[in-house]
Amino acid sequence: MARFFVEPEELNGQEIILSGENAQHAKVLRLKAGEELLVCDGVGRECVCRVQEVNPVILEVLESRNSVTEAAVRVSVYMAFPKADKLEHVIQKATELGAYEIVAFPSARCISKPDDKSLKKKLERWQKIAASAAEQSGRGRIPQVLVLPSFASALERAAHADKALMFYENEHATTLRMAMETGGWKTVSLLTGPEGGLEEKEVEQARTAGLQVCTLGSRILRCETAPLCALSAVMYAAGEF
Amino acid sequence: MARFFVEPEELNGQEIILSGENAQHAKVLRLKAGEELLVCDGVGRECVCRVQEVNPVILEVLESRNSVTEAAVRVSVYMAFPKADKLEHVIQKATELGAYEIVAFPSARCISKPDDKSLKKKLERWQKIAASAAEQSGRGRIPQVLVLPSFASALERAAHADKALMFYENEHATTLRMAMETGGWKTVSLLTGPEGGLEEKEVEQARTAGLQVCTLGSRILRCETAPLCALSAVMYAAGEF
Repeated sequence: MARFFVEPEELNGQEIILSGENAQHAKVLRLKAGEELLVCDGVGRECVCRVQEVNPVILEVLESRNSVTEAAVRVSVYMAFPKADKLEHVIQKATELGAYEIVAFPSARCISKPDDKSLKKKLERWQKIAASAAEQSGRGRIPQVLVLPSFASALERAAHADKALMFYENEHATTLRMAMETGGWKTVSLLTGPEGGLEEKEVEQARTAGLQVCTLGSRILRCETAPLCALSAVMYAAGEF
Repeated sequence: MARFFVEPEELNGQEIILSGENAQHAKVLRLKAGEELLVCDGVGRECVCRVQEVNPVILEVLESRNSVTEAAVRVSVYMAFPKADKLEHVIQKATELGAYEIVAFPSARCISKPDDKSLKKKLERWQKIAASAAEQSGRGRIPQVLVLPSFASALERAAHADKALMFYENEHATTLRMAMETGGWKTVSLLTGPEGGLEEKEVEQARTAGLQVCTLGSRILRCETAPLCALSAVMYAAGEF
């Protein structure tokens, strides 16, 4: 079923009119009267609609519901700035895999960090990547892409989750599985380092902030692989598939 | 610790001499006498060695052992030919994540399939990607990259595993977790489709061949995301992290 994202307030009535890019997209799809499609507000609500007219595109709302493709667990992916294309890769894949949000932040060994001037443009681009991946993967919610100003602010925000985890290659005792087995978590933060890894000092800082430090196994994962591996495993542990 | 791959028979003696590309690489690393490093045979054995001489590079074998970074479970990733760069991506990531081997095969909706003429060269390239990812991630084994001539041959080979799974977006009842919960598996096959997905007919063929058909959740994953998500989850289920 075709899927369109609109502003939340547009889902309130009995009728929805597609405009702007959505109208364009509807034209490309050659929608016909009587066809059914999904209109999502991008924050977890969606309406099953039937096309009444095609020019302009007027839709009758058949059913309003919570999105059926959103994970029950809210997983926030915290990633230290990697080189640009890797962050884009992670945003796309983490969105497909059901991440609630993606949060980028600086850390000591970050090679790449957008300057304040270019940040606004980059954030727009990143948010578009998330929107496009959400549409393609059939999600009802577009994960927000956030940028935090410091490592400390990332720790502080991440620590608010029921389960706040940092992955570190020199941790060997605590596995992700041990960390997840306690259960009872509805929100999870997964924090990973940049290309050069996290500094010992940063790991200590994370512990102090309340994060649990875990291993992702004995193989060294690239910085763009680690968050997606952890996210996949957490979704599996949460019973998503 | 630096890591070199040599032919299996070179691990038999008390001394190893690095030659060819390994000697070059040793030069770049500026190895010094007394330094310790790992020499792997690429099929799961490795030796901890100490540098005795640097020109030529002569190593004393201190300890011979099974690789400590190889997963106990042997997971074979079966992937229908995607567009070329995606297969390369999956080979690199699946190697990092600990796959035992990566097997590419044709299926009905494959858009891209190398012709016989270019295949030999491509296989060499793919194997190099696996070798490089194995080295970078600290593996003791280089996963083999294989190409099978038909969908039927892929099913037949995949079915030999203790647990042979196919992922299909229209399967909703059986989750990966249900499939894994029976336990007792030491070898696992994970089979996923190309960009356009698998045909209903192919899914039936897989069932007949003995594969179990599972879902990876309610979100539609891209063809390059699905195998890596499944592999991450299986490694987690196997207690790897």
